[in-house]
Amino acid sequence: MKAAVMRHGELVVDDISEPRPGAGQILVKTLACGICGSDLHALAHGDLMVEMASEAPMLPDEGMPTPHIMDLTRDVVMGHEFAAEVVELGDNVGNSAVGDVVVSVPVAFDTGGLHAVGYSNDYPGGYGELMVINDLLALKVPNGLSARRAALTEPMAVGLHAVNKSHVTPSHSAVVLGAGPVGLAVIAALKAMGVNSITAADFSPTRRALAVTMGADEVVDPAAEHALDAWRRLGGKGPLVIFEAVGVPGMIDDAIRTAPRGSQILVVGVCMQPDSVRPFVAINKELNIQFVLGYDPMEFAESLRRIAEGELDIDPLITGSVPIDGVRQAFADLADPDAHAKILVEPAP
Amino acid sequence: MKAAVMRHGELVVDDISEPRPGAGQILVKTLACGICGSDLHALAHGDLMVEMASEAPMLPDEGMPTPHIMDLTRDVVMGHEFAAEVVELGDNVGNSAVGDVVVSVPVAFDTGGLHAVGYSNDYPGGYGELMVINDLLALKVPNGLSARRAALTEPMAVGLHAVNKSHVTPSHSAVVLGAGPVGLAVIAALKAMGVNSITAADFSPTRRALAVTMGADEVVDPAAEHALDAWRRLGGKGPLVIFEAVGVPGMIDDAIRTAPRGSQILVVGVCMQPDSVRPFVAINKELNIQFVLGYDPMEFAESLRRIAEGELDIDPLITGSVPIDGVRQAFADLADPDAHAKILVEPAP
Repeated sequence: MKAAVMRHGELVVDDISEPRPGAGQILVKTLACGICGSDLHALAHGDLMVEMASEAPMLPDEGMPTPHIMDLTRDVVMGHEFAAEVVELGDNVGNSAVGDVVVSVPVAFDTGGLHAVGYSNDYPGGYGELMVINDLLALKVPNGLSARRAALTEPMAVGLHAVNKSHVTPSHSAVVLGAGPVGLAVIAALKAMGVNSITAADFSPTRRALAVTMGADEVVDPAAEHALDAWRRLGGKGPLVIFEAVGVPGMIDDAIRTAPRGSQILVVGVCMQPDSVRPFVAINKELNIQFVLGYDPMEFAESLRRIAEGELDIDPLITGSVPIDGVRQAFADLADPDAHAKILVEPAP
Repeated sequence: MKAAVMRHGELVVDDISEPRPGAGQILVKTLACGICGSDLHALAHGDLMVEMASEAPMLPDEGMPTPHIMDLTRDVVMGHEFAAEVVELGDNVGNSAVGDVVVSVPVAFDTGGLHAVGYSNDYPGGYGELMVINDLLALKVPNGLSARRAALTEPMAVGLHAVNKSHVTPSHSAVVLGAGPVGLAVIAALKAMGVNSITAADFSPTRRALAVTMGADEVVDPAAEHALDAWRRLGGKGPLVIFEAVGVPGMIDDAIRTAPRGSQILVVGVCMQPDSVRPFVAINKELNIQFVLGYDPMEFAESLRRIAEGELDIDPLITGSVPIDGVRQAFADLADPDAHAKILVEPAP
């Protein structure tokens, strides 16, 4: 099959062997797959990602099997924000049928353990034409929802999870630092919860406009005004939850420095480098920092439901579409935050 | 009056003017005052402490007045863990009587605002013979409790507050990194709550023995075994709360590195320097970091009650007593963790 392959730190288009569904698994044809910032991280900082994942594995005594860690000396087909059509059933499949359009949490399991679809040497992700996923984890896309929209289930679930892990309630206000796809998903989830006031910051006018579309009450250009200053200017009073959705060094300490006493900081942006913070300042304000990752299967299903029911209008987030040959250029294009929010890979648009 | 004065980064004994009680205030004679690690910090890193407090003030919109920040070019009499005898009443005092032995949260207020007793140019702390505190904040020491024991109310309240701010429940286990006075107070509060298993780590055999006395189920020398390894060896399973009570650079990242997935880290130790952490590792494990400071007045009162009722045996923590002339040497002695836990200043023992 045709795929955009991560090979020695580069993206190359190649014809690779097709994955085969084992017992309880289904073979699916990629219809649409979003390009995630984590994939840009993985291409640029793959060694670091593997090193840190190896250093801090999930342990058996934590009640979770350890997912296999990808070997960067071998091919990896990334892409974990997918909607796909079932084309073949493995043995013992009772949930899915050929022709179904499905989404799934990007995890596959077999007798060898857990695999992160899209960050695995054995389970190619949605930057290839075909994937193998588990029947039990596949969710049929309802309401005739298009695959393009269904592919947004995963990134919107990230925002829902971050909000669920926070202390935020409708009587809180929220500041969202960064209005890339993760920040926008957070804003949408905050809006859905009915949070009192949502202030978002991004250097990009395009992203600020998207933040308003997703539900921000106020947007600021951090080059002109700090988000926390804007929050105070608008009459902001605690309790406040700050969502850090940028993921570069210095952002956490900036949030610590500017947060009101007793605030919670949700770290959603993935900073790959060691970062410097000042514990003394955080102690003085009794801040709480919650680091978050991913979502659980119920949040994933809820995200699909919200999109399918029309509660979330995610069309404005889809700013581009490329075939497999275009993935490499799309990665380059995403470096310019003013041009894009989410680019979908559509192998056969 | 005689006092050990912080003057230009040195402790000197001098005869300084006596404080006078204003309306609603009382003049008290220091009976016993513990030496706190924060005072050692303040003497060594006073400039940094002032700089960081100035950079991150509590703001009026947070519902709290801004306490005055001490001016290090002027005299400061430290000492905020005190028990004292009332010797004179200001106007409009209805709570205290001359001769009462009292403790108080180390905060004074007047028409000029809030003052941190012991970190103030205007409100000398317990390293001097006399202090002025507020009648409404003074708690009469009950049950004939000795002033020496009552002086432990404040440091034990710090441990109680840290435990209250954590997610810990009796079904959790806890790891306490560092068994100095703060770590020991945390252990006592965890024990009082009935926490399932308490593992404590300290390089000092003396402090490890005190940790057992205060309720630790297991103590380890981190030179021989990491506290988290000991916790696992003992069959440790999540959920876990880790209390970081050392306060030197690298401790938070070490806790991040070794914590099981989903753990909470309470930062109780005050690290004055910028510190490096790896957000990626914390994100991978969805850790929660709660920074804590101090206690509230109800926790302070509860701490006094526990000591007065004999629920906490804090005598083993008192490892020394000095007059005002001995404060400087006591600061030096406290640098050796094997010699002391808490040294009391007793102006007239």
